Amino acid sequence: MPLLANVGSPDDAPEAVALGAEGVGLFRTEFLFLDAKTAPSVESQQASYTKLLEAFPGKKVVVRALDAGADKPLAFLNDAHEENPALGLRGLRALRASEQILREQLLALKGAQDATEADLWVMAPMVADAEETEYFVALGKELGLKTVGVMAEVPSLAVLADQVLATADFVSIGTNDLTQYTLAADRMLGSVASYQDPWHPAVLRLVKLLGDAGADAGKAVGICGEAAADPQLAVVLVGLGATTLSMTPAALADVRAELAGVTLEQARAKAAAALAAPSAAAAREAAAAA
Amino acid sequence: MPLLANVGSPDDAPEAVALGAEGVGLFRTEFLFLDAKTAPSVESQQASYTKLLEAFPGKKVVVRALDAGADKPLAFLNDAHEENPALGLRGLRALRASEQILREQLLALKGAQDATEADLWVMAPMVADAEETEYFVALGKELGLKTVGVMAEVPSLAVLADQVLATADFVSIGTNDLTQYTLAADRMLGSVASYQDPWHPAVLRLVKLLGDAGADAGKAVGICGEAAADPQLAVVLVGLGATTLSMTPAALADVRAELAGVTLEQARAKAAAALAAPSAAAAREAAAAA
Repeated sequence: MPLLANVGSPDDAPEAVALGAEGVGLFRTEFLFLDAKTAPSVESQQASYTKLLEAFPGKKVVVRALDAGADKPLAFLNDAHEENPALGLRGLRALRASEQILREQLLALKGAQDATEADLWVMAPMVADAEETEYFVALGKELGLKTVGVMAEVPSLAVLADQVLATADFVSIGTNDLTQYTLAADRMLGSVASYQDPWHPAVLRLVKLLGDAGADAGKAVGICGEAAADPQLAVVLVGLGATTLSMTPAALADVRAELAGVTLEQARAKAAAALAAPSAAAAREAAAAA
Repeated sequence: MPLLANVGSPDDAPEAVALGAEGVGLFRTEFLFLDAKTAPSVESQQASYTKLLEAFPGKKVVVRALDAGADKPLAFLNDAHEENPALGLRGLRALRASEQILREQLLALKGAQDATEADLWVMAPMVADAEETEYFVALGKELGLKTVGVMAEVPSLAVLADQVLATADFVSIGTNDLTQYTLAADRMLGSVASYQDPWHPAVLRLVKLLGDAGADAGKAVGICGEAAADPQLAVVLVGLGATTLSMTPAALADVRAELAGVTLEQARAKAAAALAAPSAAAAREAAAAA
């Protein structure tokens, strides 16, 4: 089970390597855009992506296209006056509405891909269905990217996992947003904080749909939400069909130790027990007892 | 296939009867609360519910408990400062946090149930899972209600349909909110309006999960969102397992005419074609061609 790191800037790469990351499962590109009044140039983006990839020669590095909107709106991309920004024009929706920004980011990634030895995978955030998957994969391939996939954060994408994995080279499950949307509870709002639990059996069932579809299609199904950093939940996610786990580098050692003590068959038994539970708390207990 | 009416006030009942409604599939109770500074008394609520039920002797009338929050916050129940009110403390969440308001509403409904000949069904809005279902059903039965169920609007509830229908007497699918949350797209926001289409195959797959679970458990699965008022979609919903359809009274005649021309087997064939489509537009075409 490859354990990868979530990374927010090329400067974080050395620490991830030192803590044993076998690659990057989620490289967030927002840092390049957040303070900018306009989109950064292709050249400056390519320099940043190249710096990141050079830290992982021969290793897999999964880069997420700009995820602007919701809690991180950009003046040149988003409308700040949405009533419910978490349900607004964010992620791929915003990029598609400003396609030149997306094309320039993908061109910069293509340049970095060709200039280095890393195995670059590129994915889109906030993708809803097979049609959007086809749009993004076609654009990425047209621009010369080798491996193109999508984030699974919107419930519809998980429900349609079989259709999506017929097109995408891979999916990566963002458990934080997938939980927020599946339970329809703002992950930043204290009064509904109890819903933000990736052990919830509804979330686990959607992960299983994606895991099963990935196995059927022979495609990778990664996890890059906070769920992967919970050692007991990491075991369950592997049992549900995750093929890689990506997390904050500080969590790598604990998750590796937990996974080393469990066979795939045991992980599947724990996953089955959690899926049948009536609540997140019960799923946690059922997995521990299985 | 019983065709029921969505009704917003007891004054609308005569028109619904005149247009052929065989009962009420969704009675919204917000009108009693919206202009109030405090919750209305049990007596005044009971008088309103009784007036409604008296218009439908011997008929089924499904009443939804107060759905406050999101676009309709109440000063005595909701916090108006949520960043994403559609993902906030609304529906059953808000009622559970102010349980006295919920208890008084259910007591008023129990009084109306015992004072009239209608077949009263009571349901909670914005329910996420089996634990919340158990809470509401137990409270309703404790207070003497005969038939207690839940709305299916939150994706998790549909994903867990088998667990939910082991406890609830029925479910009623609110296709508007179910679509909004499944696609993670604000139904009131113009820039993502194209996502608000209940023909989307992800929504149809969730309806099928509920329909299948209802058939297995021998429980009713109603539809009370706008989807039921689209004659072609009404046929598909019946094919997916809906046992009643509820709509604005003006749509009853067109839906009845469309359903009269289709067998259950044909409806199921259209549903199967729609489920396999890659988009809402394709689902519409596939159902028409099947």
